[in-house]
Amino acid sequence: MEVISLKKPSIVLLGAGYGGMITATRLSKQLGHNEANITLVNKHDYHYQTTWLHEPAAGTLSPERTRMEIKSVLDLNKIKFVKDSVVEIKTDVKKVILENGELDYDYLVVGLGSEAETFGVPGVHEHAFSKWTVNGAREVKEHIEYQFARYNNMTEKRDELLTLIVAGAGFTGIEFIGELSERVPELCKHYDIPREKVKMYVIEAAPTALPGFDPELVEYAMNLLEARGVEFKINCPIKEVTETGVTLASGDEIKAETVVWATGVRGSSVIEKSGFEAMRGRIKVEPDLRAPGHDDVFIIGDCALLINEEINRPYPPTAQIAMQMAETCAENIKLLMKGGSSLKTFKPDIKGTVASLGGKEAIGVVGTRKLFGAQANFIKKMIDNRYLFLLGGPGLVLKKGKNPL
Amino acid sequence: MEVISLKKPSIVLLGAGYGGMITATRLSKQLGHNEANITLVNKHDYHYQTTWLHEPAAGTLSPERTRMEIKSVLDLNKIKFVKDSVVEIKTDVKKVILENGELDYDYLVVGLGSEAETFGVPGVHEHAFSKWTVNGAREVKEHIEYQFARYNNMTEKRDELLTLIVAGAGFTGIEFIGELSERVPELCKHYDIPREKVKMYVIEAAPTALPGFDPELVEYAMNLLEARGVEFKINCPIKEVTETGVTLASGDEIKAETVVWATGVRGSSVIEKSGFEAMRGRIKVEPDLRAPGHDDVFIIGDCALLINEEINRPYPPTAQIAMQMAETCAENIKLLMKGGSSLKTFKPDIKGTVASLGGKEAIGVVGTRKLFGAQANFIKKMIDNRYLFLLGGPGLVLKKGKNPL
Repeated sequence: MEVISLKKPSIVLLGAGYGGMITATRLSKQLGHNEANITLVNKHDYHYQTTWLHEPAAGTLSPERTRMEIKSVLDLNKIKFVKDSVVEIKTDVKKVILENGELDYDYLVVGLGSEAETFGVPGVHEHAFSKWTVNGAREVKEHIEYQFARYNNMTEKRDELLTLIVAGAGFTGIEFIGELSERVPELCKHYDIPREKVKMYVIEAAPTALPGFDPELVEYAMNLLEARGVEFKINCPIKEVTETGVTLASGDEIKAETVVWATGVRGSSVIEKSGFEAMRGRIKVEPDLRAPGHDDVFIIGDCALLINEEINRPYPPTAQIAMQMAETCAENIKLLMKGGSSLKTFKPDIKGTVASLGGKEAIGVVGTRKLFGAQANFIKKMIDNRYLFLLGGPGLVLKKGKNPL
Repeated sequence: MEVISLKKPSIVLLGAGYGGMITATRLSKQLGHNEANITLVNKHDYHYQTTWLHEPAAGTLSPERTRMEIKSVLDLNKIKFVKDSVVEIKTDVKKVILENGELDYDYLVVGLGSEAETFGVPGVHEHAFSKWTVNGAREVKEHIEYQFARYNNMTEKRDELLTLIVAGAGFTGIEFIGELSERVPELCKHYDIPREKVKMYVIEAAPTALPGFDPELVEYAMNLLEARGVEFKINCPIKEVTETGVTLASGDEIKAETVVWATGVRGSSVIEKSGFEAMRGRIKVEPDLRAPGHDDVFIIGDCALLINEEINRPYPPTAQIAMQMAETCAENIKLLMKGGSSLKTFKPDIKGTVASLGGKEAIGVVGTRKLFGAQANFIKKMIDNRYLFLLGGPGLVLKKGKNPL
């Protein structure tokens, strides 16, 4: 009698962001119980919606609404979940080193997400809020409310307590100031602060806000935000973030107790620590999403650098692309497991981009159509709900979804 | 034809606390439109319930519920309201100096309330929260929430962010820790903090908590609070409040980011600045509540020192006594105006004392009866509602009252 050893391949997924979660759901649907051991590693036992975090950070949505327990979305009979932090990937021995252990893999999916890009400006990590996470959003919110609460208790009122600086007029910075400017009148009322005492600045080094957006939409957004009291400083690099505010390249200082850093992201620092060739933490992936030279390692989401051939520039790291990458990645792993050598090429299908501006306001492009105001806001909420649907079906939409009306 | 000059007397009321507000309502009811000019001076255009502030400070009640606009309670056709701060009383020229003006008076009622008593401990004003005001309560609440929000963002977790010290185990300290200990589990849940990381201390220099309370009630309160995780340090004076916590007389240090000072109060500093003979900002008043040697100046509330002859010690400064003083004061002013020389003697009628312990818990004495738990909690809320009724009738109870069930 012949004994055949049937070792199931180990698929390890790093990170439970948009990419990791969609890969996990797809794999657990496509693979039978006995085809593979799938393990998902994540720092927290919850998944959260990075693209919604500007809302709890500004205090307009409960942070609970932006996250869900991993076990409530994934079938943990099919996927093993390990709560731990990734320290390093050792591709030579096909191991992942965790803070409290290690894992062997046959196939690895790296969806470790992003970190704040400081562009070398000193003081960002020490004096600015730069963590676009559930913990980070809660801290920004509570910090701002604490400054408002302190103000009236001072014998000599320090107006910088009520000065709020957002560094970066890109997507994240604009969405955050949109929410915050919408909430400021309410904060003023609650803490007995005269409205004119609150100063809001958006400071951007580039020559325009929302680079890449249609100029008409950019103007709409800026007009709207200015009407709510936001002051834009465009073409105005920040030299340093200090304990008391920011110093501009011009030498001027703006005093502020709250500086929120939103100038863009880079990939995970684990990427560089693990010896991959990378640009700002992002690996330029093969058309099938594998890391060059590593046939068993897929890179998805913010850690993947993908060139848009049409304009010869990288695609921006968005949730939309991360989710589409996850679909292709799951299919390609299945193909590899079946011994296939011809994998699917990833091609993003950009359906549109909508930025919320707080309240019932938003701007965006869907297809070739420009959207403003309530219409754009409606579409934005539909996009958010669509993601919940893809991840967890109608039940999750009902539980965490947003009313688009 | 004879011309008779009818100058109406000016009655000036300083402070819109329990005493000032009740005096104002009584005078406006008892005096006809043309009998006197009544002016109420207060720092804010709202009146607030000092005895409720432990609730918004702990975050269990909206600060809005503890205050009301003065114009919503008083008839400003009958009483002139001046929003200003009192700097000094010049009894020799019968003037009150305000920050932005001055007022002449024929009769003066001083109800300026209290300030924190530090007993000379250094660092209290710099490093502890000691303002038992609406602004102060909001600051304590937001400070605590901010520390909870910061905790999980630290690479090296600093447990002192989650250490909460209440200095003083008297009425205020116990009511505050009661509310806070009730809320801590909820805070832990919201900010993903393990419950055991939160430390709560009540530090008291005297040999007992709640001095003056029945020992059986004190034990009930301490057992209850200890079960919620509060650690008592009785007979344990604080030597100094520092930037990092408190230093005890023993030399030990407890590190804490939050120190709330609740060791009792003294009268307003305006009293001493104005040259009245006073003990810790309190004037030992005549039986008719006038300041000795000043026939036209009444002192009520926390600025009045009144000896309980039975035990030869001062009555504690409570809302109950302030309100009763206000009734007598209003009557005596009316008597004086009518040319009377024999004024009413003030005699407090202590109906009972109930301390809330958070949630549905309280302790107290009403008449000779000791009350615990839900029963005491019921009575406490009835007391709170009764005050609203006295001040503004059933409408105010409906608007700001507490559900006793």
